[in-house]
Amino acid sequence: MVQDVVLLDLWVSPYTARVKIALAEKGIEYESKEEDLRNKSSLLLETNPAYKKVPVLIHKGKPISESLIIVQYIDEFWNHKSPLLPSDPYERAHARFWADFVDQKIQAAIYRIFWAPSYSEEKEAAEKEFIECCKVIEGELGNKPYFGGETFGFVDIALIPSYSYFYAHERMGNLSLVEELPKLTAWVKRCLERETVAKSLADPHKIYEFVSEIRKQKGLE
Amino acid sequence: MVQDVVLLDLWVSPYTARVKIALAEKGIEYESKEEDLRNKSSLLLETNPAYKKVPVLIHKGKPISESLIIVQYIDEFWNHKSPLLPSDPYERAHARFWADFVDQKIQAAIYRIFWAPSYSEEKEAAEKEFIECCKVIEGELGNKPYFGGETFGFVDIALIPSYSYFYAHERMGNLSLVEELPKLTAWVKRCLERETVAKSLADPHKIYEFVSEIRKQKGLE
Repeated sequence: MVQDVVLLDLWVSPYTARVKIALAEKGIEYESKEEDLRNKSSLLLETNPAYKKVPVLIHKGKPISESLIIVQYIDEFWNHKSPLLPSDPYERAHARFWADFVDQKIQAAIYRIFWAPSYSEEKEAAEKEFIECCKVIEGELGNKPYFGGETFGFVDIALIPSYSYFYAHERMGNLSLVEELPKLTAWVKRCLERETVAKSLADPHKIYEFVSEIRKQKGLE
Repeated sequence: MVQDVVLLDLWVSPYTARVKIALAEKGIEYESKEEDLRNKSSLLLETNPAYKKVPVLIHKGKPISESLIIVQYIDEFWNHKSPLLPSDPYERAHARFWADFVDQKIQAAIYRIFWAPSYSEEKEAAEKEFIECCKVIEGELGNKPYFGGETFGFVDIALIPSYSYFYAHERMGNLSLVEELPKLTAWVKRCLERETVAKSLADPHKIYEFVSEIRKQKGLE
């Protein structure tokens, strides 16, 4: 609580991971409060009544929710180091577009894969959609080290937490990301070399166990 | 084309209306190119390959899509007058949250009403959800003249174009917005008094005719 920053957290959430990476990039210490989604805390219900979802960042007692909005807040409030968004208005719009694409397309496909029965047409279609969207964003990455160019930033933060789920879906499905997405795979490796990312992401093996367990419980395996 | 600004437009779209209001607030002239969604222009397909949707703002040859991202771009590029987002980082995050709420909740409910058969449980549920979300955002408005306080801004721009559809749904459904949402109704009136809004919104009566016609064609009436 050195800086009066509290994160309502959840280890499996790619959205809370975004916030953790952004805080780490800015060197901000915070208190993490792990939520139990089957028994949400009164603090979560009070601070995010509209969605009742993590992440919520509470800074000096004031709550902010929705991960990409929180990351922009972090970038604007702690603007003394490591800019996450570019300064040029067009480049900012471009970064916002691709971060939003991660939510609308890639994360959406990941959830469809998650909830589709094994060997179903539905699962196959979701996997196909997922790979297609990843190819689109790989096209946007091109030969740059990071989405914004030479430095790690907003779009990288939006996408890299999805990696924890890539591994689970690859292991359980008909996907080979290294073969299909060589540039994106190299980008994942590059991001994981950053301490701010490595310490903020959920362990893909634990996510695999989590996803397997849920799918077994729901009769999807 | 005085300022080399082109808008790929669609008269029925609440999303293109947001961009028109923002440009009007900044006093920027632009060329509007009306799209035909049954025969999308090659310019639309080229400038927004990810979604192939309006609005697209093309400024000095560079395209930007997704309405709330475009409005932020307009605010950041033409920052000499009429700030649309507040300058304080927390207030900015707060405005972004409510603008996003309009998309995730209010516009989503409007679309569910649009596509639900008359007198169906589905339609009734969507109308109920719509009113509940409107009450939430009316609570956020409170007794302020505009969402950001004394001046018209980002959240107002996000929400006011939905008004063109409120009228159609009220006339076709079991809704009375004046009774249920008195503060929001007063806010609508206040916004419509602004020339920037009045000249940018689709005529609610024409939207009503458009919605009725589509619903008849689809056998929903």
